[in-house]
Amino acid sequence: MRRVIEVRDPDDERLDDFRALTTADRRPDRPGGRGFVIAEGVVVVRRLLASRYPLRAVLGVPRRIEELAGDLAPHTAPVYATSAEVMAEVVGFHLNRGVLAVADRPVPWTAEDVVADARRLLVLEGVGDHENLGSLFRNAAALGVDGVLLGPGCSDPLYRRSVRVSMGNVLAVPFAPLEPWPVGLKWLRDKGFTVLAMTPAAGAVPVGEFAGAARVALLLGSEGPGLTADAVEAADAAVRIPMADGVDSLNVATAGAVACYALGGADG
Amino acid sequence: MRRVIEVRDPDDERLDDFRALTTADRRPDRPGGRGFVIAEGVVVVRRLLASRYPLRAVLGVPRRIEELAGDLAPHTAPVYATSAEVMAEVVGFHLNRGVLAVADRPVPWTAEDVVADARRLLVLEGVGDHENLGSLFRNAAALGVDGVLLGPGCSDPLYRRSVRVSMGNVLAVPFAPLEPWPVGLKWLRDKGFTVLAMTPAAGAVPVGEFAGAARVALLLGSEGPGLTADAVEAADAAVRIPMADGVDSLNVATAGAVACYALGGADG
Repeated sequence: MRRVIEVRDPDDERLDDFRALTTADRRPDRPGGRGFVIAEGVVVVRRLLASRYPLRAVLGVPRRIEELAGDLAPHTAPVYATSAEVMAEVVGFHLNRGVLAVADRPVPWTAEDVVADARRLLVLEGVGDHENLGSLFRNAAALGVDGVLLGPGCSDPLYRRSVRVSMGNVLAVPFAPLEPWPVGLKWLRDKGFTVLAMTPAAGAVPVGEFAGAARVALLLGSEGPGLTADAVEAADAAVRIPMADGVDSLNVATAGAVACYALGGADG
Repeated sequence: MRRVIEVRDPDDERLDDFRALTTADRRPDRPGGRGFVIAEGVVVVRRLLASRYPLRAVLGVPRRIEELAGDLAPHTAPVYATSAEVMAEVVGFHLNRGVLAVADRPVPWTAEDVVADARRLLVLEGVGDHENLGSLFRNAAALGVDGVLLGPGCSDPLYRRSVRVSMGNVLAVPFAPLEPWPVGLKWLRDKGFTVLAMTPAAGAVPVGEFAGAARVALLLGSEGPGLTADAVEAADAAVRIPMADGVDSLNVATAGAVACYALGGADG
């Protein structure tokens, strides 16, 4: 196994990447002005180590680092081991997952990259909630979605909370902004995608009717306001999940999961 | 419209039901030893007012009470109006939803009641997380599930956070404990239910293959440990949602939503 560097001093400057994490992921001095990428816990760190994100360093308690030994093997970035107490002092709070990794942001994908070989896409408008955004990526990865395009009003999928809630899947599922808006939807249609706008409106078509389509881009809006009229108009069709009467619509990430299942996409 | 009682003094004893809400819903002196039922916000209060739960009182800012005027009409319990500031002082935190209702717990349903005319049931084992439990009820209501049965290790669906996350659907979807466990699953099978145990195991059958079954009870375990071997063994079949390789399973509430959709149940 690779050599692990033992650290006992919370002020050790080699741990500076991990300092004050509750604010560090918004540090404007980082690439892209939006901070580096932070993974927490064995499952998410493992996904980071397998991703295209350039690893800067890993910090953890010895037991967690041992669990990751195989995943760390191909990497040359430093791996620091310390106690849970020193770790808490460095990051600024008690981290019960016991291991962290920090990575730089790679060159972002473009919408062209994301769309290239995709059969199933999510297109999000106004999803500003980090947890919903993370859940959408988690569900997308599980249900065979090939990429995510971000319209206006979406937050940054690489913020720490989205990374965590996504179980690290924001690092695996390609994403890019779709600009300009909503003209980008026309561009998707020109690429052969059937663009479906999810709405709870009774007049919309049950989403399962499009299960056979070769390329589908599923358009989802934020909870509450939903999609803008412009976005719905730019789509090929408005679709809905058949629901019981008188019930509030599903959470946006849940609706996305059900619709992705209904459209097919994952190998069964 | 009914007469609304204006209150200006946060110490007014008529507001005692609403005091110190962060702990009040665990007060052991309430019926059932588990506190009364608290609804927050217009949507959830509306659902409480339409439910079988005996209303004790409503407290809100005038604008929210006006929104609920039609829903309040058939009720005789007192309705108190006050300012956001007084409300915050009474409940112990700032409540940005602006309206609360408190109800007693009615006589609980039995498993017999819940099962009687049901075609689609959820059966939960070890779902102790209040948010997951609330989300399961929200999704169940949206997707046409007729009732929920609670195995060992589930928390109380009527805790405040579950009520809120469920969007009030814990007040609409019948639920009851299923005892003894797992013998109760045999009882369900004797009632004509096909009992399906959800697992991420590759050998399980895609859940959609049971879409035509007349009566289905879908058995879900907690995230992480999943169902116990005893529960899986007592089911008719183990089922799964077809998923992409190498991805963590879905959140339990999301998995429940996808499976309910796959089984059918809501009128489309």
